[in-house]
Amino acid sequence: MSGQLRGKQSIELSGPVRILSGASVVGSKEGEGPLGEFFDAVGEDPMFGCESWEEAESILQKEAATMAIGKAGLLPGDIRMMFAGDLLAQSIASSFGVVDLNIPLYGLYGACSTMGESLALGAMAVSAGYGEHVLALTSSHFGSAEKEFRFPLEYGNQRPLSATWTVTGSGACVLGTSGGKAKITGVTTGKIIDYGFKDSQNMGACMAPAACDTIYQNLMDFDRLPKDYDKIITGDLGSVGQRILFDLLSEKGFDISAQHMDCGMEIYDPETQDTHAGGSGCGCAATVFASYILPQLALKKWKRVLFVPTGALLSKVSFNEGQSVPGIAHAVVVEALQKGE
Amino acid sequence: MSGQLRGKQSIELSGPVRILSGASVVGSKEGEGPLGEFFDAVGEDPMFGCESWEEAESILQKEAATMAIGKAGLLPGDIRMMFAGDLLAQSIASSFGVVDLNIPLYGLYGACSTMGESLALGAMAVSAGYGEHVLALTSSHFGSAEKEFRFPLEYGNQRPLSATWTVTGSGACVLGTSGGKAKITGVTTGKIIDYGFKDSQNMGACMAPAACDTIYQNLMDFDRLPKDYDKIITGDLGSVGQRILFDLLSEKGFDISAQHMDCGMEIYDPETQDTHAGGSGCGCAATVFASYILPQLALKKWKRVLFVPTGALLSKVSFNEGQSVPGIAHAVVVEALQKGE
Repeated sequence: MSGQLRGKQSIELSGPVRILSGASVVGSKEGEGPLGEFFDAVGEDPMFGCESWEEAESILQKEAATMAIGKAGLLPGDIRMMFAGDLLAQSIASSFGVVDLNIPLYGLYGACSTMGESLALGAMAVSAGYGEHVLALTSSHFGSAEKEFRFPLEYGNQRPLSATWTVTGSGACVLGTSGGKAKITGVTTGKIIDYGFKDSQNMGACMAPAACDTIYQNLMDFDRLPKDYDKIITGDLGSVGQRILFDLLSEKGFDISAQHMDCGMEIYDPETQDTHAGGSGCGCAATVFASYILPQLALKKWKRVLFVPTGALLSKVSFNEGQSVPGIAHAVVVEALQKGE
Repeated sequence: MSGQLRGKQSIELSGPVRILSGASVVGSKEGEGPLGEFFDAVGEDPMFGCESWEEAESILQKEAATMAIGKAGLLPGDIRMMFAGDLLAQSIASSFGVVDLNIPLYGLYGACSTMGESLALGAMAVSAGYGEHVLALTSSHFGSAEKEFRFPLEYGNQRPLSATWTVTGSGACVLGTSGGKAKITGVTTGKIIDYGFKDSQNMGACMAPAACDTIYQNLMDFDRLPKDYDKIITGDLGSVGQRILFDLLSEKGFDISAQHMDCGMEIYDPETQDTHAGGSGCGCAATVFASYILPQLALKKWKRVLFVPTGALLSKVSFNEGQSVPGIAHAVVVEALQKGE
């Protein structure tokens, strides 16, 4: 056994799973935001020297992956397998981003929950002894995401206040069996939750029920209270989704307002950056995790956090066919190392 | 340890992983093909009672999953987690297909290699004790795939002889720890291989290098020869891709022509069904595995097979931007149960 099943949807990992390194590469808007100083690299050119947004996003992934592997003191050939995905149709940012790394790949699609999914599956693989080093990687790009899901940028569409701004950025973490900056001790696998919302400009509302479901299940499965976590960190609910999450969890008897943090609400300054409800995209949770959350754990400022990236499962086809926007959220329990670990 | 690392990219699973059941649901064209009698259900209506091809594909997934779970004598609530994906942008066939099952989900994107990816990750999860029952699921639909990747059907585009016909179908397998019809004993995780081909109407050529790479690596990692497998079964290379695969492997010193079978070449009758190079799509390998390959192993007609679904990593965006079509292939080693197992 590499883990003990906990409750309905969770696993307590019994093999050691360490986060050896995290790396983040972002665009200029993210670099100008409140977390700007923490990112490893900020690109001034939104095209990152490429001819299309999609290629630019691939470059982001390649850079973040290469940097995380280097920070761990490893070479790409030392990585046994990687778990990666992105928001674009057929995950092309990942396909073209990682091809040159020549690392065995399990491609994922979890919308903006992908960093939760990749860390969960990566941790499960490491705990089971399926690889000494495993890479978790994801990205998003404002330009490629608007093109994929919404309106041409040239059209200058007005964005409602509930809309979020897709983060241009990629985050990567190398997982291993010893050393490192923090440890992953548990995962809670998310379910698709569909409350029937249909507004792709209010993804916080679409994802909040899934975040609630996964957080509630994690607390039940591990028999914990919100105060057992220093932080409960969602991916990109934004300010609208956060209020709904608090309401839904309070109906289940939990108040997480003292612990809650949302990566989408941290990455931009709402006063000066005009991003409305906050940031979103796979790259949002991934870059905030690699640049800010992981260092807090490494510094032991936080002892234990629940990291819950949230995804809105829509495509332009399903949206145009009148389908709802279901949500999914995957949770990983990340803890500071103890003395001697 | 739940598995022993073998060579560069493979794992020999040490915990028992059994395939408890397989189910397949297909469209009428597949039902009229050489394997028609083996499928569990054949739908006469290509819309499966729905208003769009995408919804129809979701129904296929839901039916296949429900059937596989039922055949294993289980209820959806008995499945600890599922691994599922499809070809559509943002994997909407899966999202809307499995939402009602209420099973924790890891969403995948591996193009037509998805059944290999889902069986590999599912087997790794079961071997590690992460769940007593795990579901692997995927689908494709001719109508939704043509819309997603190529031309409107109404346009009546001529298809070159190298083109394949996307299978309308969904295949599902329930994995567990005991009993069952066959066992998964190893996996070889695929890498993205890009030879620079750009022809989306010749996906066999795009995927053959990846199939070659994964099969070669599997033989190296497990120190086996082609004759150690009763069958080496690719997903959907078709007749053009098969020839390229043979050529590439012969350059590496292996002749698999005696063992090779391609699901895409089995599912349609080239004489009467006008499908050109063969069948393709996630549903091709998945339905042939569930309906035909698994029963051969259950009947012990085959002792050990290498199942290697192959995926072409393209999107209409990357294609229109002039990018190549890289390939990926994931392999699982599936063996007949021995007496007493």
